[in-house]
Amino acid sequence: MAGNTFGQAFTVTTFGESHGLAMGAVVDGCPPNLELSEADLMEDLERRRPGRTAYTTQRQESDQVRILSGVFEGKTTGTPIGLVIENTDQRSRDYDATKNVYRPAHADFTYDKKYGIRDYRGGGRASARETTMRVAAGAIAKKYLSSEFGTRIQGYLAQIGHIVLNDKSLENVRHSAFFSPDSTRESAVAEFIDELREEGDSIGAKVGILASNVPIGLGEPVFAKLDAELASALMGINAVKAVALGEGFDVVAKRGSEHRDEISSDGFLSNRAGGTLGGISSGQDIRVSIALKPTSSIAKPGKSIDRESREVEVSTSGRHDPCVGIRAVPIAEAMVALVLMDHVMRDRGQTGSSAQRAS
Amino acid sequence: MAGNTFGQAFTVTTFGESHGLAMGAVVDGCPPNLELSEADLMEDLERRRPGRTAYTTQRQESDQVRILSGVFEGKTTGTPIGLVIENTDQRSRDYDATKNVYRPAHADFTYDKKYGIRDYRGGGRASARETTMRVAAGAIAKKYLSSEFGTRIQGYLAQIGHIVLNDKSLENVRHSAFFSPDSTRESAVAEFIDELREEGDSIGAKVGILASNVPIGLGEPVFAKLDAELASALMGINAVKAVALGEGFDVVAKRGSEHRDEISSDGFLSNRAGGTLGGISSGQDIRVSIALKPTSSIAKPGKSIDRESREVEVSTSGRHDPCVGIRAVPIAEAMVALVLMDHVMRDRGQTGSSAQRAS
Amino acid sequence: MAGNTFGQAFTVTTFGESHGLAMGAVVDGCPPNLELSEADLMEDLERRRPGRTAYTTQRQESDQVRILSGVFEGKTTGTPIGLVIENTDQRSRDYDATKNVYRPAHADFTYDKKYGIRDYRGGGRASARETTMRVAAGAIAKKYLSSEFGTRIQGYLAQIGHIVLNDKSLENVRHSAFFSPDSTRESAVAEFIDELREEGDSIGAKVGILASNVPIGLGEPVFAKLDAELASALMGINAVKAVALGEGFDVVAKRGSEHRDEISSDGFLSNRAGGTLGGISSGQDIRVSIALKPTSSIAKPGKSIDRESREVEVSTSGRHDPCVGIRAVPIAEAMVALVLMDHVMRDRGQTGSSAQRAS
Amino acid sequence: MAGNTFGQAFTVTTFGESHGLAMGAVVDGCPPNLELSEADLMEDLERRRPGRTAYTTQRQESDQVRILSGVFEGKTTGTPIGLVIENTDQRSRDYDATKNVYRPAHADFTYDKKYGIRDYRGGGRASARETTMRVAAGAIAKKYLSSEFGTRIQGYLAQIGHIVLNDKSLENVRHSAFFSPDSTRESAVAEFIDELREEGDSIGAKVGILASNVPIGLGEPVFAKLDAELASALMGINAVKAVALGEGFDVVAKRGSEHRDEISSDGFLSNRAGGTLGGISSGQDIRVSIALKPTSSIAKPGKSIDRESREVEVSTSGRHDPCVGIRAVPIAEAMVALVLMDHVMRDRGQTGSSAQRAS
Repeated sequence: MAGNTFGQAFTVTTFGESHGLAMGAVVDGCPPNLELSEADLMEDLERRRPGRTAYTTQRQESDQVRILSGVFEGKTTGTPIGLVIENTDQRSRDYDATKNVYRPAHADFTYDKKYGIRDYRGGGRASARETTMRVAAGAIAKKYLSSEFGTRIQGYLAQIGHIVLNDKSLENVRHSAFFSPDSTRESAVAEFIDELREEGDSIGAKVGILASNVPIGLGEPVFAKLDAELASALMGINAVKAVALGEGFDVVAKRGSEHRDEISSDGFLSNRAGGTLGGISSGQDIRVSIALKPTSSIAKPGKSIDRESREVEVSTSGRHDPCVGIRAVPIAEAMVALVLMDHVMRDRGQTGSSAQRAS
Repeated sequence: MAGNTFGQAFTVTTFGESHGLAMGAVVDGCPPNLELSEADLMEDLERRRPGRTAYTTQRQESDQVRILSGVFEGKTTGTPIGLVIENTDQRSRDYDATKNVYRPAHADFTYDKKYGIRDYRGGGRASARETTMRVAAGAIAKKYLSSEFGTRIQGYLAQIGHIVLNDKSLENVRHSAFFSPDSTRESAVAEFIDELREEGDSIGAKVGILASNVPIGLGEPVFAKLDAELASALMGINAVKAVALGEGFDVVAKRGSEHRDEISSDGFLSNRAGGTLGGISSGQDIRVSIALKPTSSIAKPGKSIDRESREVEVSTSGRHDPCVGIRAVPIAEAMVALVLMDHVMRDRGQTGSSAQRAS
Repeated sequence: MAGNTFGQAFTVTTFGESHGLAMGAVVDGCPPNLELSEADLMEDLERRRPGRTAYTTQRQESDQVRILSGVFEGKTTGTPIGLVIENTDQRSRDYDATKNVYRPAHADFTYDKKYGIRDYRGGGRASARETTMRVAAGAIAKKYLSSEFGTRIQGYLAQIGHIVLNDKSLENVRHSAFFSPDSTRESAVAEFIDELREEGDSIGAKVGILASNVPIGLGEPVFAKLDAELASALMGINAVKAVALGEGFDVVAKRGSEHRDEISSDGFLSNRAGGTLGGISSGQDIRVSIALKPTSSIAKPGKSIDRESREVEVSTSGRHDPCVGIRAVPIAEAMVALVLMDHVMRDRGQTGSSAQRAS
Repeated sequence: MAGNTFGQAFTVTTFGESHGLAMGAVVDGCPPNLELSEADLMEDLERRRPGRTAYTTQRQESDQVRILSGVFEGKTTGTPIGLVIENTDQRSRDYDATKNVYRPAHADFTYDKKYGIRDYRGGGRASARETTMRVAAGAIAKKYLSSEFGTRIQGYLAQIGHIVLNDKSLENVRHSAFFSPDSTRESAVAEFIDELREEGDSIGAKVGILASNVPIGLGEPVFAKLDAELASALMGINAVKAVALGEGFDVVAKRGSEHRDEISSDGFLSNRAGGTLGGISSGQDIRVSIALKPTSSIAKPGKSIDRESREVEVSTSGRHDPCVGIRAVPIAEAMVALVLMDHVMRDRGQTGSSAQRAS
């Protein structure tokens, strides 16, 4: 009911504001006897961390996560895993300029209207910093899925502004400053971002996520279909405005005879569906893509109002990513991992057998 | 956990297979003292009904819904509303040809793998007939939202194949056989569908949904944001492959200074976001669009396998819509209504005040 | 949130008022491939049915349940099971005498205050007739538990008024008109009930439930412990005012050295705990008991008020059990079965192994 | 599904083991604009704290709670409230004697069987230390209920061993070292506890909880009735073996004409029901009582087995309460507060009006 818990069998409950004391999470329902340490979580947290490269925000966050419970002698015990990251970058600041102002395209307006009160330091609860906990929890899910089924979840930048990146092979992603699969466009992207920084503007992006070795049979019709759950998980990431599975919006102009994936005795002959049929995983790769809006915090001034409805001009200075889409890559991976993990457990509860059906 | 319940405060639990005895639903949590009769549900059921026009399937379903409980002397009592539609069109048929075959792009394969058993009469639980109950339940939500806040939810066909429909005004929708807002293309669409029928093929579609007079403050960050819930609700409709809010995938190539909706003392100056900020409704119109894949049941033969993995050719005869997207219009409206209704109640539970904030 | 769904993995959602058109339920999450027919449900429905013996209400309900979905060719398919019982005993009646009156110890007062409206025909939703659906759904759970683990759930009348029944052996229960384990007191109970009928009064009862062959490891600390879930399930039955596990209130005067169940290499040396430790099933028999208040509908006049707060005298004529506790026996069994079933699936989802730990 | 979240609208998710790094909780769904500080939580935490008096365990826990999020400038913001208490009393200890042993009446056996792994330091997750977080979260609920409705929740020791305490007036409770309402028995209780300590034994207790000024209309039939939710909340407290509402087990021997609470135009003429009718609060005082088993950790040796099923003798030395029932008083109050709070919000979501019905 309250909105800060994700999942039903493998649940993640998060808390924390960007400029509060700490970010935290409780991961409940984790299978016991999974080897787990803080290092397992740090790898993805490091990939998400601002200041990692010259092309994302230069704000330095020290995202050192602590496991407070649920792990004993290096293994999960089946009890809830408490996670916390202290917010060290909490300089006392002057918020007078912004505390009563609704920044355009930000959540300031809606939080204030909904709750009648708003933590105006940074984005408060609406800050992208909230996603640290999704990434940390997702790393636990990834580890279980990988060890149990060999599942691999790989996100990548598919497009930034008008620059479409070649995603034939995802080998380059881990070497790229932008999670780009296309090494031939690395400098083009870098130049584009520099240009945006100088202009005080920002840009949207498209991110793809591919999950392979996904067990067959995940997804609970008719309201918790796997694609519906992925859509919710991904649309709920800050700045995401669209989610597509397989061919996505391209199906609008496709005929049935073109779109359908035929099947031979060796398996599916194509993967236009994106890995689900009837909302249940088919064993094919899950292929999802999302659109992220351009960063709302930009230097270019924009019109808005304050709490008393007086018109103001707003310009955001500071260390912000010109493209939030880049750092969204590990966040999107984490959300896909959380969905798959939750559904492995839900399916196993009912049918007792998801492991055996792994493709 | 089990997947056949939608919502948390206003919940809808459905059951029924396409060729079973009946479709049914339990709507729980409905506010008391709402005037309600079967006629209120029939209007949208009629809009969804196959055989309504020459351009959807000619199968005749008599979707007469009965309210079995929860309404007394013409008003809801706050107790669960039981709904049932008997399946009258259950001719005894010969399913031998299809019972062991996995039709391409259908859920036959995944249901069989997941459950180890499958109701092979029609689509079973995966049939679009399941959506009758979504439409019936959605009509209850629509009625409450309309009477309480003046909320209006209007779906329409935005594109079919390559035919893009002008959606400047939605006045024409109710007069159109295709829920099309564009009267100038009515015959073009009709001809296209006739053509597809002759070819034994089908086509995808894009459907738009616009909700106006939506209370400000709906949506529960960070995992039950309004956009995330809409994404789940809509992606979970049969055949949907993508969901977009506001500018959707177009944001990928947009700059921050272009995309953001500026605000004046008279309100927002544009609506590119599609009605939410930070996952909370802003009081602007909610604008969503979805992509639906072409109907999978087509006459053109396709390759597939049977339960023993032997290769077969599959061709579906019978009375099927060449474009499932058309009849999806009232279904999508219903899902949007269910999401808004659930969130009105969730918000009111916590803040006690959603009514007052109605825009 | 809304209150008419029980369970999380194996869920039961019910609807229906005593004098409405029908009672119904949706059982969701049932494991597939369980052999199931209406006859499986009728056995317990018959045990619960009014008019079964001379000592319960003489009202004749024909509780013929229909399975509307979720079962195909005699087996569950994993999709939701729709159940319905038509209310045939709906004679048109004159409710004028009672429609505005709050019968003492009934839910009339609270339903009216909560919802501002009340179905005044019989008990409406608060009627014990609602429990038919619990019994039907419980029968499905019983069948699965029995076939998978050999679990057996046996309820019995432990006390009625001051008559304490010897429960050393439960063999007699199925032969008794009162679910009594004590054949030596059969006529004493019969006489007592006749006496109450003549007086126009009613009496409380204590019911015991014993579940054997329960898998070890059921129950989810710390808020869904098995004992907590049993307490909720049983306290939620109409008229129940207390729930006890094992020694129950007797532990108040016990020392630690007396109460604790010691363990030998052959197993536990006693069962004072009642089958759980730390809220998790230990493999010992689950022993629960409940107290049921005397029937509220009695002929003896009592003071009350009407909707306008005017004082009135209320006397209930009609065919009512002098002891609702008797017919509660199969209902209590059903609720215990639903709890165990739900927890088998929840445990299996997380640990993957409850079957193997069956004691 | 996973068991560490309580409630649906006002949710509490807890984590932490007795000898781990910290105990923590996330309180989600709290209404915004409630004044809240750590001092508000410390009052009840202090009442629960071991070492508070000579008659509970002499272990010193410094239960200093920190609010990590969700409160801004002294008020709740509607976002999740993160709470943490560091475990300072974590001396490095020698657990070799107990790590493989199942202490009788403890959860050691069942945790090991369920999860295949167990945190053997203290009680791990099964320790009563887990309840600190219930008390902290309950204090938030109490504050809201008190300020909004004037609701007051008062627990007390009703019986310890054979010593029954007079509970006519609850004035004495806050002055008593044992939460006893009966000042005439204060020294008798003290002597009894000293005696038990010397014997190395422990004793059970009965605790009563009275909630007054409870809004009418709380509780969601038919599976989330207020009494059912209270039963679950209270039975889930460590060591609780029975829960009773109003007359509880005494109803077994009562006639309908004796038990029912008659109503006059001035209100109810008695309160034998304990504050609910049909599972919905009636506006009368909620009266609940619970039975707590004697402390399982006692010096008197008992028979048990180790992980390899070898027979052992177990004797627990250390600083343990001879009667866990005493410190359960503020815990039980907290659980009652959490239930009421959750149901205020659930009721308000559906009916929009619980405040107005406050008695």
